[in-house]
Amino acid sequence: MYQLTALYNHPEDPAAFDKHYTEVHAEIAKKIPGVLRYTISHPGADPEGNKPPYYLVAVLDFADEASFGAGMGGEQGQAAVADLPNFAGAGVTLLTGPSNEA
Amino acid sequence: MYQLTALYNHPEDPAAFDKHYTEVHAEIAKKIPGVLRYTISHPGADPEGNKPPYYLVAVLDFADEASFGAGMGGEQGQAAVADLPNFAGAGVTLLTGPSNEA
Repeated sequence: MYQLTALYNHPEDPAAFDKHYTEVHAEIAKKIPGVLRYTISHPGADPEGNKPPYYLVAVLDFADEASFGAGMGGEQGQAAVADLPNFAGAGVTLLTGPSNEA
Repeated sequence: MYQLTALYNHPEDPAAFDKHYTEVHAEIAKKIPGVLRYTISHPGADPEGNKPPYYLVAVLDFADEASFGAGMGGEQGQAAVADLPNFAGAGVTLLTGPSNEA
């Protein structure tokens, strides 16, 4: 498999971020051709109550690197990337690489 | 769902890290009761050739927070946590929180 992990920094306005992410960004990203699975998680505070280092984690699975490249390089993938500045101004770390199920 | 994301920093000795992760750590973690899915990915360099900020990303899915708590609080989960210092001396960021499929 091939995986894209998006680690979003804490936004200035979490409610606006959530609204845009759910109503716009996820709707675009879930339609990227080749996306086999797409999960979104909201990390909580650690056992000591510290704020987590990221606000939201999104993980997208593709069958392989070719599918990933075709999907992200296509119209829908490019639309998802172009949408990032609309809500992720606080920053996002994108990690991409081969993956497997343990 | 409930998700645990482990973000491992770059180890001093990647070969030793990989060997321990594959042969020991993943074997313990995959047997944690309640783990529905467990993926491991190795991020590559970004388009500019920069080393990614993390060496390895592991994502474990549980049905809900109760399953997560029971699994991680049990013998196998505690063994997985206790194994971290054996290979992740460079540091690991653990993110846990509610998740959903987009």
